Amino acid sequence: MFYHVKELQFEAKPDRPNPLFAKKLQELIGGQYGEMTVAMQYMFQGWATRGNEKYRDLLLDIGTEEIGHVEMLATMVARLLDDAPVDLQEEAAKDPAVGAVLGGMNPQHAIVSGLGARPTDSIGNPWMGSYITASGNLLADFRSNLNAESQGRVQASRLYEMTDDKGVKELLSVLIARDAYHQNQWAAAIAELEEQEGLLVPSTFNREKERLVIAYTLYNFSEGEDSSQGRWAKGPALDGQGNYEYVSKPLPEGAKPMLKPAPPKLHNTLPMEDK
Amino acid sequence: MFYHVKELQFEAKPDRPNPLFAKKLQELIGGQYGEMTVAMQYMFQGWATRGNEKYRDLLLDIGTEEIGHVEMLATMVARLLDDAPVDLQEEAAKDPAVGAVLGGMNPQHAIVSGLGARPTDSIGNPWMGSYITASGNLLADFRSNLNAESQGRVQASRLYEMTDDKGVKELLSVLIARDAYHQNQWAAAIAELEEQEGLLVPSTFNREKERLVIAYTLYNFSEGEDSSQGRWAKGPALDGQGNYEYVSKPLPEGAKPMLKPAPPKLHNTLPMEDK
Amino acid sequence: MFYHVKELQFEAKPDRPNPLFAKKLQELIGGQYGEMTVAMQYMFQGWATRGNEKYRDLLLDIGTEEIGHVEMLATMVARLLDDAPVDLQEEAAKDPAVGAVLGGMNPQHAIVSGLGARPTDSIGNPWMGSYITASGNLLADFRSNLNAESQGRVQASRLYEMTDDKGVKELLSVLIARDAYHQNQWAAAIAELEEQEGLLVPSTFNREKERLVIAYTLYNFSEGEDSSQGRWAKGPALDGQGNYEYVSKPLPEGAKPMLKPAPPKLHNTLPMEDK
Amino acid sequence: MFYHVKELQFEAKPDRPNPLFAKKLQELIGGQYGEMTVAMQYMFQGWATRGNEKYRDLLLDIGTEEIGHVEMLATMVARLLDDAPVDLQEEAAKDPAVGAVLGGMNPQHAIVSGLGARPTDSIGNPWMGSYITASGNLLADFRSNLNAESQGRVQASRLYEMTDDKGVKELLSVLIARDAYHQNQWAAAIAELEEQEGLLVPSTFNREKERLVIAYTLYNFSEGEDSSQGRWAKGPALDGQGNYEYVSKPLPEGAKPMLKPAPPKLHNTLPMEDK
Amino acid sequence: MFYHVKELQFEAKPDRPNPLFAKKLQELIGGQYGEMTVAMQYMFQGWATRGNEKYRDLLLDIGTEEIGHVEMLATMVARLLDDAPVDLQEEAAKDPAVGAVLGGMNPQHAIVSGLGARPTDSIGNPWMGSYITASGNLLADFRSNLNAESQGRVQASRLYEMTDDKGVKELLSVLIARDAYHQNQWAAAIAELEEQEGLLVPSTFNREKERLVIAYTLYNFSEGEDSSQGRWAKGPALDGQGNYEYVSKPLPEGAKPMLKPAPPKLHNTLPMEDK
Amino acid sequence: MFYHVKELQFEAKPDRPNPLFAKKLQELIGGQYGEMTVAMQYMFQGWATRGNEKYRDLLLDIGTEEIGHVEMLATMVARLLDDAPVDLQEEAAKDPAVGAVLGGMNPQHAIVSGLGARPTDSIGNPWMGSYITASGNLLADFRSNLNAESQGRVQASRLYEMTDDKGVKELLSVLIARDAYHQNQWAAAIAELEEQEGLLVPSTFNREKERLVIAYTLYNFSEGEDSSQGRWAKGPALDGQGNYEYVSKPLPEGAKPMLKPAPPKLHNTLPMEDK
Repeated sequence: MFYHVKELQFEAKPDRPNPLFAKKLQELIGGQYGEMTVAMQYMFQGWATRGNEKYRDLLLDIGTEEIGHVEMLATMVARLLDDAPVDLQEEAAKDPAVGAVLGGMNPQHAIVSGLGARPTDSIGNPWMGSYITASGNLLADFRSNLNAESQGRVQASRLYEMTDDKGVKELLSVLIARDAYHQNQWAAAIAELEEQEGLLVPSTFNREKERLVIAYTLYNFSEGEDSSQGRWAKGPALDGQGNYEYVSKPLPEGAKPMLKPAPPKLHNTLPMEDK
Repeated sequence: MFYHVKELQFEAKPDRPNPLFAKKLQELIGGQYGEMTVAMQYMFQGWATRGNEKYRDLLLDIGTEEIGHVEMLATMVARLLDDAPVDLQEEAAKDPAVGAVLGGMNPQHAIVSGLGARPTDSIGNPWMGSYITASGNLLADFRSNLNAESQGRVQASRLYEMTDDKGVKELLSVLIARDAYHQNQWAAAIAELEEQEGLLVPSTFNREKERLVIAYTLYNFSEGEDSSQGRWAKGPALDGQGNYEYVSKPLPEGAKPMLKPAPPKLHNTLPMEDK
Repeated sequence: MFYHVKELQFEAKPDRPNPLFAKKLQELIGGQYGEMTVAMQYMFQGWATRGNEKYRDLLLDIGTEEIGHVEMLATMVARLLDDAPVDLQEEAAKDPAVGAVLGGMNPQHAIVSGLGARPTDSIGNPWMGSYITASGNLLADFRSNLNAESQGRVQASRLYEMTDDKGVKELLSVLIARDAYHQNQWAAAIAELEEQEGLLVPSTFNREKERLVIAYTLYNFSEGEDSSQGRWAKGPALDGQGNYEYVSKPLPEGAKPMLKPAPPKLHNTLPMEDK
Repeated sequence: MFYHVKELQFEAKPDRPNPLFAKKLQELIGGQYGEMTVAMQYMFQGWATRGNEKYRDLLLDIGTEEIGHVEMLATMVARLLDDAPVDLQEEAAKDPAVGAVLGGMNPQHAIVSGLGARPTDSIGNPWMGSYITASGNLLADFRSNLNAESQGRVQASRLYEMTDDKGVKELLSVLIARDAYHQNQWAAAIAELEEQEGLLVPSTFNREKERLVIAYTLYNFSEGEDSSQGRWAKGPALDGQGNYEYVSKPLPEGAKPMLKPAPPKLHNTLPMEDK
Repeated sequence: MFYHVKELQFEAKPDRPNPLFAKKLQELIGGQYGEMTVAMQYMFQGWATRGNEKYRDLLLDIGTEEIGHVEMLATMVARLLDDAPVDLQEEAAKDPAVGAVLGGMNPQHAIVSGLGARPTDSIGNPWMGSYITASGNLLADFRSNLNAESQGRVQASRLYEMTDDKGVKELLSVLIARDAYHQNQWAAAIAELEEQEGLLVPSTFNREKERLVIAYTLYNFSEGEDSSQGRWAKGPALDGQGNYEYVSKPLPEGAKPMLKPAPPKLHNTLPMEDK
Repeated sequence: MFYHVKELQFEAKPDRPNPLFAKKLQELIGGQYGEMTVAMQYMFQGWATRGNEKYRDLLLDIGTEEIGHVEMLATMVARLLDDAPVDLQEEAAKDPAVGAVLGGMNPQHAIVSGLGARPTDSIGNPWMGSYITASGNLLADFRSNLNAESQGRVQASRLYEMTDDKGVKELLSVLIARDAYHQNQWAAAIAELEEQEGLLVPSTFNREKERLVIAYTLYNFSEGEDSSQGRWAKGPALDGQGNYEYVSKPLPEGAKPMLKPAPPKLHNTLPMEDK
């Protein structure tokens, strides 16, 4: 169950409106790695955690924090859209700065949402449930989380460089710091789980059932041997259970597939004699 | 540039048709973490790598391998669909095993693809470009890759447990082994990059610009203190640059947001006197 | 900013697992009118409200409540999936009840989420940001909200009739009651706004600018006069500003459109002489 | 069965081409609340109406009218795209008005459709079947219809303010008038149904089965009591069956959920001892 | 502008309800090649036709017919859903035929649409605007149309074989006949255009600007020479402007791409020395 | 199984960066008819071909070639994005050419992909599996392929006209030539199949089962007789099995549909007495 307070966790006030930046900032709200994604991802992972209360609690701590991030960003976007030139005509476009705005702002910020944030990314793709990951395997999922915080911090850093609005930079400096913590935090949780389970996910699959002989091999499918110069191509594997191997010229082991004809009632093309 | 040989890298022959399993196996072809995803993800990462030929080569090695995985799975699905009971009527459903197939197989496997694999997941959602990640930051992206191989191996392991068809198990044992190698391999590449750049992505953002004072803090937003019992809540942070801190009762720092009215030409609701 | 408590607002325990019902119940989580929709819709409306603190508060009250609904449903789905027969083989399908489950359960509940809820509807379409509505015009949006609660209660009622599991019915009886309140509540908010603004949204558009002469007319475009038998076809209009009119045989006023050829550089088909 | 006449119901001729406005106008064709939505929504509702010929007829009257609206808008967009500067080079961008067009027009209007309208919204998201609502419950659906006409009129009004092209304004004044009628008309149909069935949808669900004790309660989940100042928080409810109640500090009734471990064959993380 | 008559163009009555077939039949309504696609495709092509009234008229004739096809199919689906066992419990699943229905019917046909057709395909993917093609080049588009009618007739034929319901077969026999005419008809329109413009689309692109030396070459990228045994590999080309050529071992002409580093403010990985 | 060489099949170097053109060029990568589509379409068709090795080989030849096209375009886009003005502020927008770029470039090219190509079209819609066609009926699918190459060549030709960058034109001249060959080649394959099977797809459906009497009829559903002036309206049909017929005033043959009420447990609106 959730409670809300009206105050923002951190301030979200730009120095001045800027509809072009509002459009860009949407990436952090409804993009593949925006705050809606991490909020929903951590919630769904937490709600599905079976036992392991420590991790469930951690997931719900951070999932709850992230909804507040969506709130700060939505507030910031609304303010960046204040006074957007929504009724300017072509005449105005002769001023190049105005022209850039007229040509470049997200038209749905005016037509659809009336200067409110949208549940979309920076080019207007709606947020999708398929952005999130929750598998029931915590080590797998924490790796997904570490990735999400890494991508998110890259994006927030890029946006930080693209503006000189102090208020916007202030909020981004908060988000960048939180992404840093969350990287530190998921990395620690991963280290803890890897210590118990080892490197490979899932740890519970009986390795005798897999084709172990090809489980440490780098196949050189892209001509050129540059990739052989890495820690992944020779020496003991990171999982401590085998040795990396490099295969310079991989060859097929399987046969050329020959498929049976389909039943006539499907009206596929029937096999013909080659001419 | 690419070349193709007709032989499969590994064999892909089930012992007998099984349209219900064909439907499930689609998850590994066109699901969020299926082989289309890793093939395209590694390709797009490789094609965008600027310098760093070793990593570009590695990405294209594995991306190319993964297209071959799609091919093996597509072949397997086509064979699992051989002889699917596409023309059975309701009468037949009185045999429960037939009924399960009639009710449960993917109807598009008959109506749309004529017993061929589909570019979709196990419930028919089409594969989407938004499943892939390629940011230009290799450490971020390799974390995404490690996650993808972890999720993929979890899914392949689950599918392995759901069948007793030896031919299917044989192919899955190959895919599971390759997912194991790829975890080992991305983990090694990550270790190499973290050694150079440190834990935090991106390493190049000047940390003086972020709100460092909140960059090591776990906020307890979900009541209960279970999450304080982890390595992420106290002691030196994994990045070696700070100490974890735990805040039991987080408080807002920002103000309650009050937004300006929208311009009248947008026909938003105007502010009213409360009654 | 948000806080979370671990306790559910209401209990969410089925009497026994039922993976087929788990699949169906997903409609209320991630469907077009599921709880993710109302949670996000009320939040985005609230965050974008400019002035009108009473309505902003109301939106955030209910938006916050709805996240808790997602939580209860996600918990219920996880429990309905307990002990799902994820490793049964074809043999088992000879038992018809088992066969129905094998053919009918959502395969992603096993393969992808490991018996956790998914951010999707009952047939697996991912939740989308385009399900929500937030226009900045509160009367328009409250009508959207009233619709959402109406559709939601219809769906929850249907699901209630499809099960005899007392625990599931218990949770549904809560959701149905809340949907009833929310209909009562949005209807009251609508009445309040309509009293101030009148029936037509937006109330601020100067009606002299519209083609008033056709603003009260029902055109009989589907042959047959049944539709003339309603309150919308004659007498004073509900907005108090005109009289309904019925046009039995609507005729075109515009001309047949003749478009100019496209510039040659677009390589459209050029106009040809008819033969 | 449908017939078509070549003449447009109303004229659709702009004074001059304007590819930026063509892009914006797409919102009314293929947006969430564009004419494709209402056309398809009313059709699917009408085709599924069981009995109640008056409403079926009404739905098909208006659904048929709306296809004609798509036609007028598609014609208008094609004309706004006449003479679009599709072959201008960077040089030209030095003229700011041209630059705004080059940067801002929808590139698919040239590359993909050759100056024709697209079945998308103003930022190019394709129209989706999931935009429409048809539940078989007419009162629910008419509320959806009233909402659609309200959102649609808000959007058309905003677009009206964004142009000074008389021909465009002429067409928008028609659409705005029709949206006004359709609000008047669905409101009348709703009033008729509410008179028979009461406020709550569905009216046929036996209220003894729901948790009536919480069916009139506003929970104050967002701290602050502004929302208690409305007609929805005290006094007799609009449905005439209860009294509104305001709960200032809502408390959980359910327990903290503890989920059972997943079966080992799913390879979820197993419960661990906390450290 | 459109008119509607209540009578169906052809009858749409099944002999008996069958919710499993209703699910499958949805493919013809809202699938990639369903009737919504051809209706919208022909309309958008017609509305964008510039000059060439004969083709515009043809497109609108058939587009209008296809909306009537959606209507017949929607009616058929509604009737196939009559009496669907929407309230059966698990007990009932012990009857295998019932079990197949319970497991296999589309749950949204009950929960969401109340036994009405849905704007989706046979597995519930919503219809999308991106299914349609309208380029402004009629020869290109008529090829798309010929393809659509071919795919559609394949699907309708498959469905015909999957049922023994005479009423359903009756409707399918109509749709299959119409798909046959439409193939005949688009083929005739294509022949007419190819006679004027030649084989290649677009005919207006100056061929001196393309790399003509590779415009008649089959590259053997998939090892094995089977594909050299076709009319496309040697002899005069169908366009009458060149001779087919077969290249057994294609070699790259371009260089290995070396990309420049990204600007530091993007925080991409910088080029590193290989180790 | 696939192999990769680092060299591009053809060169992919622009004369100078141009982020606006990079955005447009995305249409050829991830658009409905971009190279991802043809690559995946030919692969899935090839992998599902049952017998008919010649066609399987042809499909895999060209499918493999097309992945190389994606690679060239991705390289070109990365180079067009070199030096994109990602950190310019509003000040800079006063230069109109810069303003056009700031307003018009795809923000995800900077924020998300760090100057790499995206798996999307020119307005950022992600590539989807539903763009491809693979039915198991080769004649149907080759018509889809001929259409894809026609649409693709139209789009590439349009893009060719929109730039004066010699390097870009060079690559486009290659793609245009290849699209020309592929039209020639699919046309030849179609001719070969039509010679064997006749015009109608599928050729194997027993025509006695369809309503032959309406299989050669053009219905004049759009008032006006222009469409009667084509080869498709009179004389012998192209399939050689009938004669075209023109029906000037089509009339319905079916009845007005009257649907049965839904079961009460679905809570649809029950039939009411009309008032």
